[in-house]
Amino acid sequence: MLIDSMYPKSFASDNHAGVHPAILQAMAAANTGDAPAYGDDTWTSTFEEKIKEVFGPGADGFAMLNGAGANMVGLALMLGRYSAIICADSAHIATHEAGAAERLLGVKLMTVPTEDGKLRPTDIKSRLGGLGNPHESQPSVVSISQTTELGTTYSPTEIAALAEAAHESGLRLHVDGARLANAAAYLDCDLKAITTDAGVDVFSFGGTKNGALAAEAVVVLDSSLAHAVPFLRRQSLQLASKMRFISSQLTALLTDDLWRQNAGHANAMAARLADGLADIPGVSLAQPVQSNAVFATLPLPVAESLRQRYLFHYWDEAARTVRWMTAFDTTPEHVDDFLNDIHKAAAM
Amino acid sequence: MLIDSMYPKSFASDNHAGVHPAILQAMAAANTGDAPAYGDDTWTSTFEEKIKEVFGPGADGFAMLNGAGANMVGLALMLGRYSAIICADSAHIATHEAGAAERLLGVKLMTVPTEDGKLRPTDIKSRLGGLGNPHESQPSVVSISQTTELGTTYSPTEIAALAEAAHESGLRLHVDGARLANAAAYLDCDLKAITTDAGVDVFSFGGTKNGALAAEAVVVLDSSLAHAVPFLRRQSLQLASKMRFISSQLTALLTDDLWRQNAGHANAMAARLADGLADIPGVSLAQPVQSNAVFATLPLPVAESLRQRYLFHYWDEAARTVRWMTAFDTTPEHVDDFLNDIHKAAAM
Amino acid sequence: MLIDSMYPKSFASDNHAGVHPAILQAMAAANTGDAPAYGDDTWTSTFEEKIKEVFGPGADGFAMLNGAGANMVGLALMLGRYSAIICADSAHIATHEAGAAERLLGVKLMTVPTEDGKLRPTDIKSRLGGLGNPHESQPSVVSISQTTELGTTYSPTEIAALAEAAHESGLRLHVDGARLANAAAYLDCDLKAITTDAGVDVFSFGGTKNGALAAEAVVVLDSSLAHAVPFLRRQSLQLASKMRFISSQLTALLTDDLWRQNAGHANAMAARLADGLADIPGVSLAQPVQSNAVFATLPLPVAESLRQRYLFHYWDEAARTVRWMTAFDTTPEHVDDFLNDIHKAAAM
Amino acid sequence: MLIDSMYPKSFASDNHAGVHPAILQAMAAANTGDAPAYGDDTWTSTFEEKIKEVFGPGADGFAMLNGAGANMVGLALMLGRYSAIICADSAHIATHEAGAAERLLGVKLMTVPTEDGKLRPTDIKSRLGGLGNPHESQPSVVSISQTTELGTTYSPTEIAALAEAAHESGLRLHVDGARLANAAAYLDCDLKAITTDAGVDVFSFGGTKNGALAAEAVVVLDSSLAHAVPFLRRQSLQLASKMRFISSQLTALLTDDLWRQNAGHANAMAARLADGLADIPGVSLAQPVQSNAVFATLPLPVAESLRQRYLFHYWDEAARTVRWMTAFDTTPEHVDDFLNDIHKAAAM
Repeated sequence: MLIDSMYPKSFASDNHAGVHPAILQAMAAANTGDAPAYGDDTWTSTFEEKIKEVFGPGADGFAMLNGAGANMVGLALMLGRYSAIICADSAHIATHEAGAAERLLGVKLMTVPTEDGKLRPTDIKSRLGGLGNPHESQPSVVSISQTTELGTTYSPTEIAALAEAAHESGLRLHVDGARLANAAAYLDCDLKAITTDAGVDVFSFGGTKNGALAAEAVVVLDSSLAHAVPFLRRQSLQLASKMRFISSQLTALLTDDLWRQNAGHANAMAARLADGLADIPGVSLAQPVQSNAVFATLPLPVAESLRQRYLFHYWDEAARTVRWMTAFDTTPEHVDDFLNDIHKAAAM
Repeated sequence: MLIDSMYPKSFASDNHAGVHPAILQAMAAANTGDAPAYGDDTWTSTFEEKIKEVFGPGADGFAMLNGAGANMVGLALMLGRYSAIICADSAHIATHEAGAAERLLGVKLMTVPTEDGKLRPTDIKSRLGGLGNPHESQPSVVSISQTTELGTTYSPTEIAALAEAAHESGLRLHVDGARLANAAAYLDCDLKAITTDAGVDVFSFGGTKNGALAAEAVVVLDSSLAHAVPFLRRQSLQLASKMRFISSQLTALLTDDLWRQNAGHANAMAARLADGLADIPGVSLAQPVQSNAVFATLPLPVAESLRQRYLFHYWDEAARTVRWMTAFDTTPEHVDDFLNDIHKAAAM
Repeated sequence: MLIDSMYPKSFASDNHAGVHPAILQAMAAANTGDAPAYGDDTWTSTFEEKIKEVFGPGADGFAMLNGAGANMVGLALMLGRYSAIICADSAHIATHEAGAAERLLGVKLMTVPTEDGKLRPTDIKSRLGGLGNPHESQPSVVSISQTTELGTTYSPTEIAALAEAAHESGLRLHVDGARLANAAAYLDCDLKAITTDAGVDVFSFGGTKNGALAAEAVVVLDSSLAHAVPFLRRQSLQLASKMRFISSQLTALLTDDLWRQNAGHANAMAARLADGLADIPGVSLAQPVQSNAVFATLPLPVAESLRQRYLFHYWDEAARTVRWMTAFDTTPEHVDDFLNDIHKAAAM
Repeated sequence: MLIDSMYPKSFASDNHAGVHPAILQAMAAANTGDAPAYGDDTWTSTFEEKIKEVFGPGADGFAMLNGAGANMVGLALMLGRYSAIICADSAHIATHEAGAAERLLGVKLMTVPTEDGKLRPTDIKSRLGGLGNPHESQPSVVSISQTTELGTTYSPTEIAALAEAAHESGLRLHVDGARLANAAAYLDCDLKAITTDAGVDVFSFGGTKNGALAAEAVVVLDSSLAHAVPFLRRQSLQLASKMRFISSQLTALLTDDLWRQNAGHANAMAARLADGLADIPGVSLAQPVQSNAVFATLPLPVAESLRQRYLFHYWDEAARTVRWMTAFDTTPEHVDDFLNDIHKAAAM
């Protein structure tokens, strides 16, 4: 199915956006003749230093090709053959990675139903009943998404409480940070506050949804685990041969807080959209807006009418919920035009 | 280990080269605001049409992120739970993909020793003794590399003979075409002659070693298999969200025969290097030069002396064999300077 | 933890029972000098004929070593690399096989919450939303347990409806029949009525919980699938070398309806237990008794008091539910003594 | 294919033999009413104590259902996600377990060609070139078979040398001991001398080929590994529910040296057969006879003529090699009759 460019700004996904000019420029600047492959290059060492600068000297960063890959490599570090992962039932690894966790990692996902996509410490405890029982998969990792698939955000305190609950029972804490930048921008904190400082063991840091072309990182904070990443990255098909072009994207995002600029702008556009909805009868927010996602409930005929002009997805058609995403390049005009069209559709 | 850029042109790998300007330009040209993610975009449909144009109307092309990924997805299409792959013992899938075939595909590699990296029909027959025996892995795919890891090239007739031998026994033929372009340029034929026309079932077409940033394709010629690729690509961590930037690279290579221009140039530089070696005492070719690779045998002190100034790898240190690779951007001057230095080192 | 034999009859599991004398005798009778290994023996061919006799001429039976093994081999026949299994969240494959489904099959279990352990056709429909979406695991099998882990039983009509719902959407129906005999005995029908005649594609037939030493069968009713079993059985570690001693157990069970005699008796003992509970204040049934399992709710102090003399498990301690199982060798006296003790404990 | 019992004694496999009466008796003796399932029974604790008695107080024994299962569970203890196993190319795990190592363990087998099925320390060194290279599978285990698939036997000194070579490079030593008893009987040493005392880390101890019905053990000598066995055994489909009937077989073998009596007798019958061959023109030994296997080379018409009356396999038809196995129940008359028939066939 080919979708044409006849639509105005897409509100379907931050993946529909293009590449931020500074990132494309950084990639072009890396195109200076020869460089060793597979990460033995200066761009990659710069990226690795940036990771230590941002996340602390104990942080080891590894460039990956996409978000599912970053999740699988990061999780593999902490899983044995009979392990399980505790996660929200809406977690990306549980719902939208085509069963990669089960097939590539061979582990069970112990999913927990949630209202807002967020795990609580009690959710962890609720899944530990089979610890030590050879008939049951053994949970060894708690994986959360920051921001969640429902656009909500964990505070540093909430993450620290999850890390404590996990560690108390001998589990580790993983964060799928495909939109980590949006979380930090929303919380108005630095990236370290919701990772290193909160007790996270391994996380991914997403670039692609925040203006990169294709660049994600696995960051390992538990130094006993880092040695395995190069092997797992290679085996998991996540090793770029011309790695300088991936590393340079990540460095660009981590330089002069471009990550915050992009994510903060996207968040602001989501907030503008959410604010505008307040006036529109029949349309309400389904989740608090804490990132660049707006989950709204509206009559299906209104949604259908809008979908003739705009790209976006139903989240739960039965519940009349849609997901609207903004990106680094969404403009106030895009949002206002969209709000205008929602107004009109709702009035029909 | 960080390797600096103090060296002249690398002869270690075609992966050390940068990106061809036309390809970087094509990527920048795709950065025009929004486009649907995951391949529902016009750049990807253009790429898909190019594949049909080049390989025939029955060919279905799918963009992938790297070569190992393209191999794993392509092979997975033709493998069951108890299958085996027959391949040369030097095959990339057997030696340099960190056990991805065993772990991600769960299959046995039935490797065959070869002199020149090339399988023969009799090699296939030699591995079929256990067909039907429930105690043994069942070979279902023959996988060859074009060009081989030893820089040699299969002729269209040789491939057709392998396809026939495979099909006769109910196996399928896969080609790891990370350097398919170099083979076609060397053979002075089109890409279709060594794939579609020769009876290949599934192959990969490599862009990265031929001037792309990161772009490979799986091409499926057996139409009964194509439906599974989207699922396997997603699960195998090879799906780019902003796929237009991968597709546009592949389209650029397939437009105006850029692939042949790049590969033909690299091949010519390898031939120039090989020709120059003829005059140098103590240095001899270890394999016929049929692509952009020169395998040479030389005294270890000579090799060591050269490695102080040039990046390249031993292929088999015990046999005093080295591998020298050229790329789309290797110049005659690079080659001549290198030959000069080899002369000097050999004369010491 | 070693549990001694100081207890009276165990109500913990039908696995705590020993071996029915007729079965041990059949094994001894097979010990007559040499026989070909791995199933090329007359005992195994007799078993295979018995399967056709009982389940119809299109049924192919294969002897396995244990129930989890029979499930994994049977399911593997119907699963690709990105497949999912729809099952009840209480299913044995989901809860008590140590993650074998995820690790050995590499597939996602799409679990459905149920009151009574039984799936309904609407449950199947509820899990098909992602069919065709490359980001999601693709359900290809519905697996039910007969009897369920909650001791309930599907009628022939109910199974036929599930088979129809599965087939309509291109899925296949699998039955974990570890206690298939108990179901048929309860329903007072033959084994064919709840398998072949109801549209099941592949099922397991359990011997061990019904008086065998260690013997299960995978029965394939969809003849297009049977050829793969010998390979999968070998690879899945379920092939007995001296197979005659497994086959002879299964044949013994299928001869003169020993399966029905054993299962019917166990069911009758469970019914006797359930009937006796009616008089005891504070104790109630948590599930209808439709097999050899009694799920009862009772005050925890009563349960604790009983557990000092009897082996049995909590099913859900928070809900004060226990599981009491009977076996082929449970006697009316065992049940009456147990009821007596429950009475006393409840009266304290 | 059904093979009838019209043949005299089989020389095809020690798996063709039945069950030793003492073992069948031990199983029957365990059939005394209830016992806890899954190993919480007195027969299993007796078996566990026997293992410590025979192999030392640091040895932990775990009952398994078959040899391939014992290998997979034992090896899994010592393998990560990107590990490889170094083994002889004739190893059972490499040739006759239907790819279980690749599929269930996900690892590469780095096979070494051998003359006699035995690995040497230099073979280990020869496979370590890629240690630390992220593009290559990382060997972490050396696995040898005792006796080998060619009927040869490692001396205690040879095993100690392999253990030392493995440990020096950070690898562990595994022994596939499907015929460990035959080796110890041949070497006239106790079982501990070729396992615990020789530096082995994990091994399997086979019962089935030595007179048991179906019983193997994994024995763990590196105590840091034992905790994982119960989980891996369950997940790998090797957990017997009525485990007492497996444990009692192993205990019987380990009591009053029944293992040595059975294996020693089988070895003696192989020696008698080998001795008798010395007189027969055109027939020669292909391997030294160091267990219950005789590998002989003979004219194919002679072999074919014998195969009309006797069950046995070609080992390498092109090399005119056959394998003749003896068992605990092979009698001198069986051997002498067979020798007679070989004489006659060779004379034709």
